[in-house]
Amino acid sequence: MRFKRELTRGRILDASYKLFAAKGFKQVTMKDVCDITHMSRGGLYSHFPGTASIFEALLQQISQENFLDIEGEIDKGTPATEILNSALAQMQKEIDHPEDSLSIAIFEYAQMNESEVMIDLNRRAVDKWAALIHYGIKTGEFKNVDVDETVSLILYSYQGLRMWSRIIPMKKKTPEQIINHIKKQLIP
Amino acid sequence: MRFKRELTRGRILDASYKLFAAKGFKQVTMKDVCDITHMSRGGLYSHFPGTASIFEALLQQISQENFLDIEGEIDKGTPATEILNSALAQMQKEIDHPEDSLSIAIFEYAQMNESEVMIDLNRRAVDKWAALIHYGIKTGEFKNVDVDETVSLILYSYQGLRMWSRIIPMKKKTPEQIINHIKKQLIP
Repeated sequence: MRFKRELTRGRILDASYKLFAAKGFKQVTMKDVCDITHMSRGGLYSHFPGTASIFEALLQQISQENFLDIEGEIDKGTPATEILNSALAQMQKEIDHPEDSLSIAIFEYAQMNESEVMIDLNRRAVDKWAALIHYGIKTGEFKNVDVDETVSLILYSYQGLRMWSRIIPMKKKTPEQIINHIKKQLIP
Repeated sequence: MRFKRELTRGRILDASYKLFAAKGFKQVTMKDVCDITHMSRGGLYSHFPGTASIFEALLQQISQENFLDIEGEIDKGTPATEILNSALAQMQKEIDHPEDSLSIAIFEYAQMNESEVMIDLNRRAVDKWAALIHYGIKTGEFKNVDVDETVSLILYSYQGLRMWSRIIPMKKKTPEQIINHIKKQLIP
C-alpha cells in the first residue's frame, strides 16, 4: 500500500510539473491536477492539501534530483573540472529548453508565499557551488578566485538567463558565452 | 490643451508605476488606475485603451529616462570609466530598492503579450552596453575584452539579481560582488 501511495504521489508530481511549466503557478488549480491525473478530488486531496504543497514537493524533488549531487561527487573524488563541466552542461540544457522550465512558476509562487522555501533553495545552491569551488582550489584545478563573488556570478547570471529565455527568444550563443566566461574564471 | 494632456498622461504613468511595482502586471485593472488618479473611466480611456498600453508607455519612458544616456555621454567625450561607474551605480540602486522595481510586472506582462516590446528593450540595452565597451576599448580605458560575452554577462547577472531581490532578502554585498566582478573584467 505504502509503495502504491508513493507511486501515485510521483505520478501527481510528474503531471503537475508539466502544468506548472506551461501555466506558471497562479493559474494551476487542484481541478487541473485532477483532470490531468484522472484522479478524484478526494484522491488528490488525500495526497496534497493544495497546489502550494504540490509545488513545494516538486521543488524539493528537483533540488535533489536535477542538480548534480556536487557534494557526493566531491566525496567520490571526481575531478573538480569534471563536476564543473557537468553542472554547467545542465544549466545550458535548461536554458535551451525554456518550455520545460519552472522559472515563471517559481517566481509566481515566491510572490504569493512565505519566502522560506526559496531562501532554503537559494542557500543550498550557494553551498553546493561554494563547496565545488573550494574543492577545485584545494586540488589545484581551479584558480584561487574569490569564492563568494564567483558563486554570486554563477547563480545570478544563470537565473537571469533562465528567466529571460522565457521572455525573449534567446540566441544559443548567449548562454554559451556566460558558461565560457565562468570556465575562464575558474580554469587556469 | 496639448500641454495639459501631456501633464495628465504623465500623472497617469507616475501613479501606474507605483501600482505595477506593488502588484505586478496581471492584478492591476483600469479601475485601480482610475481610483489612484481620481479620474473617471472616460477620462482615463481617452488616454489609454488598457493596462497593457499604459505599461508599454511606462517601459518606453523608463528606457529613455532611467537608463543613463550612454550614447549621449560617449558623444560628449565623457571618460568610459565614468560612464561605467554611473551605469553600475544605477544598477546597484535598483537592486537595493526591489520594492520600486517593475521586474515582476515586466515578467507577467511578457508572458501575456507579444514579445516585440521586450525584444526591443533587450536589443537597446545590448546596443548601449556594447557601445560603451567598444568606446572604452578604443580610448584605452578598458581591457580588450570579448564585447558580446561581457555584455551578456552584465545584462543577465543584473536581471538575475533584480528578479531574485524580489524573491529573497538579498545581502547588500551580493550586487556589490557582481559589480566588482564586472569592473575587474573591464578596468585594467
